[in-house]
Amino acid sequence: MKQFTSVHDIQNVEALIADGIALKNNPYQYKELGAEKTLGLVFFNSSLRTRLSTQKAAHHLGMQVIVLNVGTDGWALELQDGAVMNGASVEHIKDAAAVMGLYCDIIGVRNFPTLRDRDADYAEDLQKQFIQHCKVPFVSLESATLHPLQSLADMMTIAENATKKKPKIVLTWAPHVKPLPQAVPNSFAEWALRCGHDLTITHPGGYDLKESFTKGAIIEHDQDKALKNADFVYVKNWSSYDDYGNTIGGHDDWMVNAEKMALTNNAFAMHCLPVRRNVVMTDAVLDSNRSLVLAQATNRVFAAQIVLQKMLESNF
Amino acid sequence: MKQFTSVHDIQNVEALIADGIALKNNPYQYKELGAEKTLGLVFFNSSLRTRLSTQKAAHHLGMQVIVLNVGTDGWALELQDGAVMNGASVEHIKDAAAVMGLYCDIIGVRNFPTLRDRDADYAEDLQKQFIQHCKVPFVSLESATLHPLQSLADMMTIAENATKKKPKIVLTWAPHVKPLPQAVPNSFAEWALRCGHDLTITHPGGYDLKESFTKGAIIEHDQDKALKNADFVYVKNWSSYDDYGNTIGGHDDWMVNAEKMALTNNAFAMHCLPVRRNVVMTDAVLDSNRSLVLAQATNRVFAAQIVLQKMLESNF
Amino acid sequence: MKQFTSVHDIQNVEALIADGIALKNNPYQYKELGAEKTLGLVFFNSSLRTRLSTQKAAHHLGMQVIVLNVGTDGWALELQDGAVMNGASVEHIKDAAAVMGLYCDIIGVRNFPTLRDRDADYAEDLQKQFIQHCKVPFVSLESATLHPLQSLADMMTIAENATKKKPKIVLTWAPHVKPLPQAVPNSFAEWALRCGHDLTITHPGGYDLKESFTKGAIIEHDQDKALKNADFVYVKNWSSYDDYGNTIGGHDDWMVNAEKMALTNNAFAMHCLPVRRNVVMTDAVLDSNRSLVLAQATNRVFAAQIVLQKMLESNF
Repeated sequence: MKQFTSVHDIQNVEALIADGIALKNNPYQYKELGAEKTLGLVFFNSSLRTRLSTQKAAHHLGMQVIVLNVGTDGWALELQDGAVMNGASVEHIKDAAAVMGLYCDIIGVRNFPTLRDRDADYAEDLQKQFIQHCKVPFVSLESATLHPLQSLADMMTIAENATKKKPKIVLTWAPHVKPLPQAVPNSFAEWALRCGHDLTITHPGGYDLKESFTKGAIIEHDQDKALKNADFVYVKNWSSYDDYGNTIGGHDDWMVNAEKMALTNNAFAMHCLPVRRNVVMTDAVLDSNRSLVLAQATNRVFAAQIVLQKMLESNF
Repeated sequence: MKQFTSVHDIQNVEALIADGIALKNNPYQYKELGAEKTLGLVFFNSSLRTRLSTQKAAHHLGMQVIVLNVGTDGWALELQDGAVMNGASVEHIKDAAAVMGLYCDIIGVRNFPTLRDRDADYAEDLQKQFIQHCKVPFVSLESATLHPLQSLADMMTIAENATKKKPKIVLTWAPHVKPLPQAVPNSFAEWALRCGHDLTITHPGGYDLKESFTKGAIIEHDQDKALKNADFVYVKNWSSYDDYGNTIGGHDDWMVNAEKMALTNNAFAMHCLPVRRNVVMTDAVLDSNRSLVLAQATNRVFAAQIVLQKMLESNF
Repeated sequence: MKQFTSVHDIQNVEALIADGIALKNNPYQYKELGAEKTLGLVFFNSSLRTRLSTQKAAHHLGMQVIVLNVGTDGWALELQDGAVMNGASVEHIKDAAAVMGLYCDIIGVRNFPTLRDRDADYAEDLQKQFIQHCKVPFVSLESATLHPLQSLADMMTIAENATKKKPKIVLTWAPHVKPLPQAVPNSFAEWALRCGHDLTITHPGGYDLKESFTKGAIIEHDQDKALKNADFVYVKNWSSYDDYGNTIGGHDDWMVNAEKMALTNNAFAMHCLPVRRNVVMTDAVLDSNRSLVLAQATNRVFAAQIVLQKMLESNF
């Protein structure tokens, strides 16, 4: 595997999920594989779970990890080809990515969207240029539009808990206090559909996701109706794609609570964390024995590990 | 050992001190003990000695270390149970600590007091909730009210240098330019008393420490009188407990200088560092051959190491 | 080797360059040498290449690395001996360096000049005091006036690419948008001269470097004339030494482009990175097959590694 930026980089998703789950029996079984290899983690934006779980995965594989926090170091990159760099940018991504690739055997990058310029965000220019110039295997640690390591962990969690072949999964929009990226729901949708799950997406009007990620899912604007017979309820806020980066306000009644979970088929509740309790979901849902949020967080380690492992095994 | 938050977590303090000192002969003798174990260090406040000495201790034990700087990453935690999280907090401590516990085998946390709300600071709510929710062994890297790793290092230093069974130790308040926590003196007092040392605490009026930490010590408001016959002089500024977090001003004559040290029994001078030279203590005292400040700093490594080792040995 | 702060710390420069290049065949050949050794990296200023390449070098040698970012942690050091520390400084360099030396086997420090007080910058007081008080081997990661690890990497790159014994090397000033230190050109000049290269330095009037670094080089104010017959062109901006830290403005025509490179003996183009493209040098020069900028960046790892290795081998 040379890059992991979306489900489209994977040929056999079911095998990847199964291999990731199998690692949990003996996390250090491949600890010689990463000897003398360096993983570089570049954070343009802050990170808790991704940072820690990816470092842990690298430790399991015996890799060295170098972390670069771009935000706090104020390392402004130029993305425009041919730019006369007489402004704020101190280095061109061409040079920065090329140098990182000289020092690291695998590179992971996190970069959030601006939520202002939709075309620029969805072009994923920073990621594409990083991949082009670093020349080593590349792992997305969440990009402007997708969060594939989260989605892989989510699919592993569903696989471990599903009691039927084609469970009904509901991805529901939920309220929040500020505009959030569409990366997690975009990514969840395309992974769930690729896994062949029965996916329903529910949200208020104005919050449609980009169609290319959701094609094949049922879109249902009545949340109660959507939740009927659900086996898994994936809760997540996102800002508008159409009215890009904005939120319409209101819709507090979309918070997922025990009454709403009672409409389901005793469904599991999922969220990628961090979650604003009693805004997005109630304490009762998060702390119930049907909550999978910590199982998802655990699987973040093994999702990262199986991806790194496949990259190490392919000898680049 | 499941937690190390104060002297009350230790059954046999003398044995712990002796075991810590014994590590110095061969720091890497237990380097297999921490193989495949991860130590998570969470800094809500800045740190030099604690950060470096704890990392070094973990290296001695063969552990992997993951560091999270909360301050610079702006990770605001909610502590209130049942809170509707529509404000500044992005994650509840319940979830944050639980996730950290999934990724780490031992967790260390540093959090300073507000110095504004005494009841809140002394309730040690952040630490208690972290311990409750992370579910793995927990080491205080200095909390709102105590600094047990510093105190253990201090007791090791006293044990290595004492020439009598029950040395006279004087903990003296000293001037400073801004209000400081009571964590170091609170902690030093309860460890020295538990060790059975002859402890005198001296400070200007208005700087009494909380009685529960100092019960058994002699409180003497005349610094010169207190210093008489001292074998060890521990110098430290702290802000007022009664007029919480404030400083009264003045008292520059409480700076510890060579004249004051001359009142003692050729005492050793101690300070936890960092120290503002010629405000708290003079150069002459800090640079004399009776200064133990670097010996204390050295022992920070082995204090951390013996605590981590006891946790690793107890197999959690 | 006890310290690496300039070319004057090296007895046999040619041998050091050759040994550094030889490491590239098998970077991990000395991976047992640094076992149980800790490298402390202290960054008073930001760093990408130096941070990553030095960490990578340490990994090659099996050393543990501890990184301290002084800037973001706000750790203001007092340098004045005997100071009454009632101001902004929280710790004296005496104590800070001594403690770092207790925890680390080798220490590297990066500190930039103020560009305001020339005497203070050129006194290299912070570096000298760090060396005096830390008492362990010391590596400059770029100081106020020199960048010896960069220069060593540059000399390795020249050695690998030169086709004659005494190549003509031109160090040319180039435009920039803000005042930069003289550390890289000072250091490059003294290393190139020590290696016996034929060195010409060209810059507009007012940008003379301090003579002690350039004695033996030809100084030529006509850039075109200087470039004639050059085998290597090292491009770098620097601010004025005479009108200290200032820039005169203008001189945009000093940017190195393809037309200027055509005046040379098909010279290689060099720059230490980061580079502002199309201000300092054009894309055409940086992206040509005569550009050595990535080769220089690669050699940063092995320059750091050979220095650390010599320190480890000398058993301190």
